Parts: sequence; structure tokens; C-alpha cells
Amino acid sequence: MVVSRWLQPEALVWGGRLVRDVALAIAADGTCDAAAVPPPGATVERLPGKLLLPGLVNAHSHAFQRLLRGRTQAPGAGRAQDDFWTWRETMYRVAEALDPDGLAIASRQSFLEMAHAGITTVGEFHYLHHAPDGRPYEDPLELALRVIAAAREVGLRIHLLRVGYARPGFNAPPETRQRRFYDSHPDLFLAAISALEQRVRADPLVTVGAAPHSVRAVPRSWLEAVARARPSTVHMHVAEQPREVEACLAEHGRRPVEFLHEIGLLDERFTAVHAVHLARQEVSLLGRSSVCACPLTERDLGDGILPADGLAAAGTSLCIGTDGQSEIDPFGELRALEGHLRLQRGRRLALPSTGEGPDALARTLLEIGTHGGARSLGLDVGRLAPRRPADLCAVDLGHPALLGAPDDALLATVVFSGPASAVTDTWVQGERVLRGGRHALDEDSAREFTALCRRTFA
Amino acid sequence: MVVSRWLQPEALVWGGRLVRDVALAIAADGTCDAAAVPPPGATVERLPGKLLLPGLVNAHSHAFQRLLRGRTQAPGAGRAQDDFWTWRETMYRVAEALDPDGLAIASRQSFLEMAHAGITTVGEFHYLHHAPDGRPYEDPLELALRVIAAAREVGLRIHLLRVGYARPGFNAPPETRQRRFYDSHPDLFLAAISALEQRVRADPLVTVGAAPHSVRAVPRSWLEAVARARPSTVHMHVAEQPREVEACLAEHGRRPVEFLHEIGLLDERFTAVHAVHLARQEVSLLGRSSVCACPLTERDLGDGILPADGLAAAGTSLCIGTDGQSEIDPFGELRALEGHLRLQRGRRLALPSTGEGPDALARTLLEIGTHGGARSLGLDVGRLAPRRPADLCAVDLGHPALLGAPDDALLATVVFSGPASAVTDTWVQGERVLRGGRHALDEDSAREFTALCRRTFA
Repeated sequence: MVVSRWLQPEALVWGGRLVRDVALAIAADGTCDAAAVPPPGATVERLPGKLLLPGLVNAHSHAFQRLLRGRTQAPGAGRAQDDFWTWRETMYRVAEALDPDGLAIASRQSFLEMAHAGITTVGEFHYLHHAPDGRPYEDPLELALRVIAAAREVGLRIHLLRVGYARPGFNAPPETRQRRFYDSHPDLFLAAISALEQRVRADPLVTVGAAPHSVRAVPRSWLEAVARARPSTVHMHVAEQPREVEACLAEHGRRPVEFLHEIGLLDERFTAVHAVHLARQEVSLLGRSSVCACPLTERDLGDGILPADGLAAAGTSLCIGTDGQSEIDPFGELRALEGHLRLQRGRRLALPSTGEGPDALARTLLEIGTHGGARSLGLDVGRLAPRRPADLCAVDLGHPALLGAPDDALLATVVFSGPASAVTDTWVQGERVLRGGRHALDEDSAREFTALCRRTFA
Repeated sequence: MVVSRWLQPEALVWGGRLVRDVALAIAADGTCDAAAVPPPGATVERLPGKLLLPGLVNAHSHAFQRLLRGRTQAPGAGRAQDDFWTWRETMYRVAEALDPDGLAIASRQSFLEMAHAGITTVGEFHYLHHAPDGRPYEDPLELALRVIAAAREVGLRIHLLRVGYARPGFNAPPETRQRRFYDSHPDLFLAAISALEQRVRADPLVTVGAAPHSVRAVPRSWLEAVARARPSTVHMHVAEQPREVEACLAEHGRRPVEFLHEIGLLDERFTAVHAVHLARQEVSLLGRSSVCACPLTERDLGDGILPADGLAAAGTSLCIGTDGQSEIDPFGELRALEGHLRLQRGRRLALPSTGEGPDALARTLLEIGTHGGARSLGLDVGRLAPRRPADLCAVDLGHPALLGAPDDALLATVVFSGPASAVTDTWVQGERVLRGGRHALDEDSAREFTALCRRTFA
């Protein structure tokens, strides 16, 4: 393989281990080639004081929800109590208001903030499909394609999880504000996924998966259809709120994870998003699958604390997502995943570490934030190794929050104390996305997003 | 009063309310004069796109613990489990190793990071008094004065909470690593506070309070001596860990807060730091006092979740502290204070808001982070109003995390989604400390702190 160039950081996570005094060789096709001393005459970009990590993988995003930021942190008029369900009312109002341009602008701003935070791949759980009146756009894939284009314009790799949504819930009253989400039949849902795959196949940085929204939003027949179709990835919201568990028990006589097990969905292609409210037997049923934790959103929405230690012990592959975008901060998500468990368990180092040394737990968390997400999205990213995509982020070890980081605990310092603003550079498939904390789209996107906010909430 | 200059931001929190289209008048003595339209010819510094807030008050800091960052996030050799107590072992090792210069350098770096995060006042809970062998320095106030000097060099206002420490615990084995903390008699502890007050009286930005460390570290006689002496502020670690509650029950037949009530300490001058493990009756006993929450540290150490909603209902004045410095992020502390309650209660907007509108809860949280801290430290800061000190911070509303913030929910966006890096400028008593995200000491402090880390952990 022809090595086109070298990146020479202060330290590099290569094959999951921290290495120094070597550079990363990137091949012309954007994959990693080696971590080695560059030969004389090589093209070397020096990154002094930088730590190179695999790019973070954001396995669960609703990009447009960036528009909700700051707008849901006050009691609603006449409400006895605010919770997930009252938050959803505001989200529906925003979702109703967006036209294709607005969706593209909001999504792009979200993706841009992700790039600034070291994210190189996003799993976009996309549920806005149709016009506000529920009719398909002239191109029925219009909105999905606009979201994909926004991610690609920023430079991110995207796995579009095309959502299937059938109903407001079991025995729930009609909900016209969900009209933009619905397909009238599971075959149409699956056909939309296939059609989308065709439309994006020219871009190797775009892939597509299936996301039956939740046991609330789709009936048994839809899940059986998904199980038969065997898409390469299946993501579902699972057990985010106690009310969902109760409804599932009422409809199916099973708790959500038990029910999904019965359907036959819980294999290694499956990702349960949230999975906060699990009975003990459900934890073990998830041992072959992924669970996507969104701890900053779960905190914001009062969902509860993921039993991540039990899941890890059961063999579940964990990953993270920024979900509702109240913050976009993957290191923050990772330390909240571990930290919320500490609060609940009354001890430190709650998740089991693989390996030893001062960086052991941080390495485990970083694997969750990179390789775990890649597995959930069916992608070959998340680990820097020969012939793997060079999806990278650089962290400035001179950032005030990271000064004095121990040589043998750089990862612990970054994961437990590093702000998103310590990320200065990212690359996706070897292509520079963020450079020195700047992105070429920063100003345009800021202007258009600000105008969109004014227009949407006028 | 002679107005010396005006600051003209995009918006300003004045008297606890958000106002626009006015500038803040700062008098020659560094106090606020008015929020008004500047007269013709006035000296006006424009701060376009900036939100001016009262400076954040960090009511509980152990500045030198910045040295621990990244060093305690891995399982200790041979340990069955990591918790607060195993973390304390590492902290003792660092505390033992510091000489006066080292303490000054570590403290200054902490204070500098605080200035970058919008903090203008620190309450430093200072427990390192003597040489490593336990003997007083030639000047017995040496270390306290070095810490104070470090804060003043950075430009912060400091309330030095001089700690009294008598013993390793009730019926606990001797602990030589605490020798640097001990006074041999409560009168010497109180005398040290008076002596320190004398030494710092020339600087109006330095004040002193009393901090009997905890019911673990001081016996009843010490607390009775403090109650008789009636210092202007009394801070104690209270009920951070279940083991402390058990020891207090064993020694005094009372839970910690019940015991402190019996001693007569729980008036408006008292601040209980942490107060995580409270029985119901203890919550109401704290109604006249302050409670300092350190939620990011309490998460890091697995302490547990403060019943802040119950305390607020009981009338307790809440404030925040960065404590162990694993992160220095006051907005992050405030949203964790509210967020951890959400996780526990399973709903949103867990703390009661005062007032109405989209900013109501954020205003409450911001009051906790400013005025609440000022009350705890016995200072007249934390609120911008006529004749109050002009201790301010400016937040860049153009920061990517804050773009599109609603006009009526600027505070909600900052408090719930703003990173510390959105703070660009601070002023203490009208004097500029941070300018455009830069501090004059950044480079020197970084170099000296990095060298100190190498030296300390070589």
C-alpha cells in the first residue's frame, strides 16, 4: 500500500494501546497503514503536544433536536410535573415546524458541533420522513437524503438508521403530530431502507440501517417483518421510561427486552438504545447485542441510570450517543456513563476495566466511545490499526484541563477531565475535517442556524 | 459615586433579572453603580455577543487536589474495590509530597483554571498547615498565606477556610500522613484563624473563616469551642460517606447533622459541605444553614446524590464547589446538581424554580452558583446591584454550544448546555482578570505546573 503521508503526534492510541515516538502512516485510500518512525523524506505533519485517538462514534443522534437546546428547561404552563413526556410535547412542536431546508440546517449545525467534539461517525436515528400533513414528499427519501448530505458536507461518516413508526402506542389515542413519522405498512418501511441504500451506495462513507422506533411505536407484526428481513443493523429505543415497560407488559405480557428476545431480534446486529429500566433476566438477554447509553440525555430527561456494569458482565457491547443534543460532548458522555453508576453503587471504578495500569478504565471507556459504537453501526472504524479507516481526533494535551497529565494516564485525564474543547483536529477516512479547532463551515452554519432558530420560534 | 467606566454587553443579569440594551456602570472603587444607557462621552467597553453574569462563586475548593487529576481513575493494586477511602490514600500521598512552592504552584494553576471557567471567588478549604513531619513552619501561617497569594496573583477573591483537624477518627488507628493537618488544641486552631485574619486584613479581597474538618476529624470539645467562638463562617464536611454517619452514631449516639444541631452550630453562618447522606429529620435541621453541593466530585468519588430538592424546600441555601478539581466547570456543577436529582426522581425540573418563564430554573441554579456561594462565604458578591462588587463573567453567546439560544432562555441555554470554555472574560472588584479567554499567567503557570507534576510524581 502506498503511504501518502504521516501524522506525528506526541502520543497515539494504536491497536487500543498508547504508543509514543511513532507517527501514523495514512495510505492514499484513507486507511491507516502503520505506526512507525517515518522514513527519510516522508511527508510528515507534526502535531506537537497532541494525542491522536480513534474518532469518537456517536451511535445515537437526533440531529435536529439541537433546536430544542435551552427551550425545555422550565416548567410548562399548567403542568403538575415535567418529565420525558412533557419534553416530548416540545420536541413534537419543533418536529412539526421544520421544512427540508430547516432540517438540513439544524442537522448540519449539530454535525458540526460533533466534529468540534471529536466525533467522526454519527448514527442518525432518523424519524422525520414526510411533509407536515403526513404526505410523502415528491422524493419520499427527501428528508433522509438531506440529513445525510448535511453530515457529508461537514465531513462526517454517517450510518442513517431509517426509523419505522406505526402508531402512537398500544391503545393510545391518535396523535396527528406523528404523521411525519409514519409508514402505513412494515413492507413500506423496509422498502424505504432498501431504496435509501440504493441512493447512497456511491458514497462509501454512508450506510443505512433499520430502526423500528420502539415497542411503543410499532406492533409485533412490524418487528417480525424486521426479524425476517435481517437488516445489517437494527436499532430500537428500549425501556427508556417505566411507562413503556408497563405498556409492553399490557400488550404482550412480556417486558420489552423479553418480548424482543421472543421475536428473535436480539443478536449481534441489534442495539437497544437507553435500556435503562431492565429486569435482571433482561440484562442477560442482551449479552450478544449492543446497548447505546446516552447518559447526558438520560440525565436531562430524568430517564434513570443504565445498569452498565451488569450489561458489561453479561457480555453486552456498550456504546454512547448524544441523542437529544442538550450537550455534545463524548468524553462527558463516557464519564457520565461511569459516574452515574458510581452515584448509584456508592463506589468508584464501577465499570469493569480490561487490562491494567492507570489508564485501564479510561481505555475501556474509550473503547465504548469508539469501537463499541462502530460495532453497533456495523462499521469498520473505531480502532486504529492497519487497513482500518483513518478516522481520528487530536486532543491538545496543553489544554488547561489536561496540563500535567501523567504519561501513563493520558487517557484517564482526557476521559475523566477533558472538555470537548480540548479536541482540535479530526480526520475522516484520512481527510481533514477540523483543523486547529476550526471548520470551514463554522461561520456559514452559525449564521444559517441562528436565522433558522428565529424563523422556527418566531 | 464617580462612574469610571461602562461595559456594554448584549445582555446582563442585573438584580437577578436579564436585561438588554443597557450597559453596566462600574464605579472607581470596583463596585457596580447602575445598569443604564451610558451618557454621551462615557468610557464604554463594548462586549458584543456577550452575556454578563455575576462571577461564579466556588464555595468549596481544595486547590492542590488539581494534582490528582487523571491519577485516581484505575483500580489500585490488590484492592477489592475503589471508593472514597481508597481515593483518599492517593490524596494523602500527594499532600505529603508538597513543599510550600509546590503547593503555591498547584493552587495557582487551579485558581487560573477557575478564572477561565468564570469563577471570581473561591472558598478554599485549607487543611495543609505544617511541614511533612508535622512541625510548624517558621511562619506557622506559611502555607495558608501561599495559597492566598496564589489566588490573589491570579486575581480571584478568596475566603480561606482554615481547617481544624484533630485526629484520624473515632477509635481510628493513628495516621501519620495527617500530621500536616493537625493542631494540638482547639484554642490553637482558633488562634491560627485570628492570626491569619490579622495578616490578611490589608487586602479587602481576602477573608478568613473556620472549618472544623468533619465530625470524623474533630471531637465534640472542638466543635463546642467553635460554637463559643462564633466565627463569621463555619464550614464542615458533613455526611459525605455512610461510614462517617456510622462512626458519628457510634461516638455520639446521633447522626452528624443531629449532633451538630445539638452543639448549636447550625445557624446561618454554617455550611455543610456534601450533606449527601441525610435522614429526613436532618434535612429540616439544615433549614437556616447553607449546604455546599460538589456534584461532579460526589459523582467522581461515588458519594451519592444530594437531596437538594428537600433541602431547598426546607429553606436551606444551596451553593456549589469544585472540591477535588477533577473538573473545574461551574455550569457543569449546576446542571449535575439538578441532573442527578432527575436521575433519582425519574422526572425533569427537580429543583423548585423561583419565578416564571423559560429561564426560571436556570435563574435558580445561577443564584445557587453565585449568591448562594456568597452567602456561604459571608461575602457581599454574587449579585450585580448598586454598590455591590463588580465581580463578573462574560459568556460568549456565539460559542457553538450556545448558538441560537432563545432570547428569553439565554440562562437556560448557558446553564444546561454551556461549557466552561464559553466564558471569555472575568472581572473581580471591577478589575479585569480574564480577557478574551486569555490570562497573563497562562504560559508561566502551565510551565511551572507541568514541571511540578513531573517532580512530584517522578
